[in-house]
Amino acid sequence: MVAKPKKPKSPGGELDILRRIRIFAGTRSGGVRLGIGDDCAILRAKPGEEIAVTTDLSIDGRHFRLGWHPPESVGHRTLARGLSDLAAMGARPLAAFVSLGLPPSLTSSLGRQKPWVDRFYNGFLSLANTHKTPLAGGDLAESPLALADVVLLGAVPQGRAMLRSTARPGDVLYVTGSLGGAASALLQLTAITANHPELAFPRRIPTRLVSVLQPHLYPEPRIAQGLRLQRRRIASAAIDVSDGLSTDLAHLCEESGVAAELDAASVPIAPGASLDQALHGGEDYELLFTASPAVRVPPAIAGVPLTPIGRIVRRRSGSPQILLATSKGQVPLEPRGWEHFSPQ
Amino acid sequence: MVAKPKKPKSPGGELDILRRIRIFAGTRSGGVRLGIGDDCAILRAKPGEEIAVTTDLSIDGRHFRLGWHPPESVGHRTLARGLSDLAAMGARPLAAFVSLGLPPSLTSSLGRQKPWVDRFYNGFLSLANTHKTPLAGGDLAESPLALADVVLLGAVPQGRAMLRSTARPGDVLYVTGSLGGAASALLQLTAITANHPELAFPRRIPTRLVSVLQPHLYPEPRIAQGLRLQRRRIASAAIDVSDGLSTDLAHLCEESGVAAELDAASVPIAPGASLDQALHGGEDYELLFTASPAVRVPPAIAGVPLTPIGRIVRRRSGSPQILLATSKGQVPLEPRGWEHFSPQ
Repeated sequence: MVAKPKKPKSPGGELDILRRIRIFAGTRSGGVRLGIGDDCAILRAKPGEEIAVTTDLSIDGRHFRLGWHPPESVGHRTLARGLSDLAAMGARPLAAFVSLGLPPSLTSSLGRQKPWVDRFYNGFLSLANTHKTPLAGGDLAESPLALADVVLLGAVPQGRAMLRSTARPGDVLYVTGSLGGAASALLQLTAITANHPELAFPRRIPTRLVSVLQPHLYPEPRIAQGLRLQRRRIASAAIDVSDGLSTDLAHLCEESGVAAELDAASVPIAPGASLDQALHGGEDYELLFTASPAVRVPPAIAGVPLTPIGRIVRRRSGSPQILLATSKGQVPLEPRGWEHFSPQ
Repeated sequence: MVAKPKKPKSPGGELDILRRIRIFAGTRSGGVRLGIGDDCAILRAKPGEEIAVTTDLSIDGRHFRLGWHPPESVGHRTLARGLSDLAAMGARPLAAFVSLGLPPSLTSSLGRQKPWVDRFYNGFLSLANTHKTPLAGGDLAESPLALADVVLLGAVPQGRAMLRSTARPGDVLYVTGSLGGAASALLQLTAITANHPELAFPRRIPTRLVSVLQPHLYPEPRIAQGLRLQRRRIASAAIDVSDGLSTDLAHLCEESGVAAELDAASVPIAPGASLDQALHGGEDYELLFTASPAVRVPPAIAGVPLTPIGRIVRRRSGSPQILLATSKGQVPLEPRGWEHFSPQ
């Protein structure tokens, strides 16, 4: 209450926006017993389930750019980050919460155009709907900088969450889908916005570019795949590829106290992407998981291929944590993916 | 991944800060089965319990000021907001999550001084410890604007959460503690920082001022009181006084479809505060609740007094939602408390 506290209710105020979100969001669906409008939302898991929680903060200029990303994409991407964390644990989504900090210009209409915030919610709720994830609450504040903090809650049977810390030497390393697509699309988005300022968003993206940019603008979290890996007890450990394969594999090795060997030729590279983008580009939101060689791993789940790309080995002091096998022999693979908050 | 993604691990990077938070936070305590370090935290409620969730976004210049508030107070206040929401539902705290967006200057040491972020966590974790609330995760991002989004999870027996929407005509209206203290202290803080720029925080507050400013800098959420009201089935409805009595009572009336009469002479006013501050000042984090006249309400819970301040009446179209009874008769009471996001 640092700003002047005495203001009457007004159109465009918090109450008004909460009313609009209530309309956007179907409350009291699924595990949500009480949604937006009270001091807390109330959620119910099934007996014997634990609750998985993840929070992801997205900031203009850092995780998205108002001038580059259509508002629908910002909404989609902020939710996809959290859903992907649930997928990596093998959790089924229970509810989403979104806290927005927005400058006033993004909450008001411009002529006939919908306000930015409405288009943000359209993108957010469209993906939420795909994964049966009700929006159960959130917070709103005026902010000179646009930002969204998204919280996802999921449910997973007790003791059955897939962890980063349980990979064992001998396990085979797998990845879902293909890698590098988001990094390749981001590069193209950068080029497009640099060469064609007239295309600068939030205008509509020309149709011919939508499919090219899709992997960056509208990544698909692997909820169905994570759930199947957990329910069939296929994975011995899992993490999502949000920061880049080299970095996320290093996280998994670190937490499990193991090392890994990666086969460069086996890494599934997205159309148009390079091996470098597949190894180090982030935000593909595929799942990286390990499985005992004794476990039968299906070639695909719900249409998304599962590809063996290497193996987990014992960690030896003095040896690199990750070795990349190429046609020219083995080279150490340093984590060169995305790390937030490092000095530039 | 809009910023340049290819950066090696580095001191001061996310991993480094997460390691420090792991030290700050006791993970795997209480209901937290898996804390910081995996894709999600894993929480466990008791059989038959539901999960209460609240998120609160605090932004520099809006909810706190880096130049006014000691970092410990910012940490305390951001957590107090969420704990107070749990208190209002009668939930016991399960875990807290904090997403921070911070400029680099707040995460690095200045000579012998601790970094701002360490002092933030000291304030946060000190209050968390008081209320047995483990810090189970969060997110970090570099941001030109300092901000904290805090998520609190609590547990409450199925169907027993205290709601805003269940007050009935005839119920008596109560408030815990006293009101207006935070608004009065904020006014003094404003005067101090205006008249004595040499006192500007984040330097230490002179001891003589600590108790004066306490209600604003270190408000006490009413967790024990909320739990008792819920467990003894005393309250028929509840809300926390975060935005000001006039505004929060209006929320409760709105959600319950009722009206209220308030006795001005009964409102417990904090030492040094005015009736106006008690009626409209926010951030006292007391509980406002209703109880059937047939229910025995104790005079105090855990040393905090419970004061009857009015009653719930039937809503009549054309009549004001809240009437304030004063020595000069009844006057309508408009909600004049804090509403975020209104046009100035």
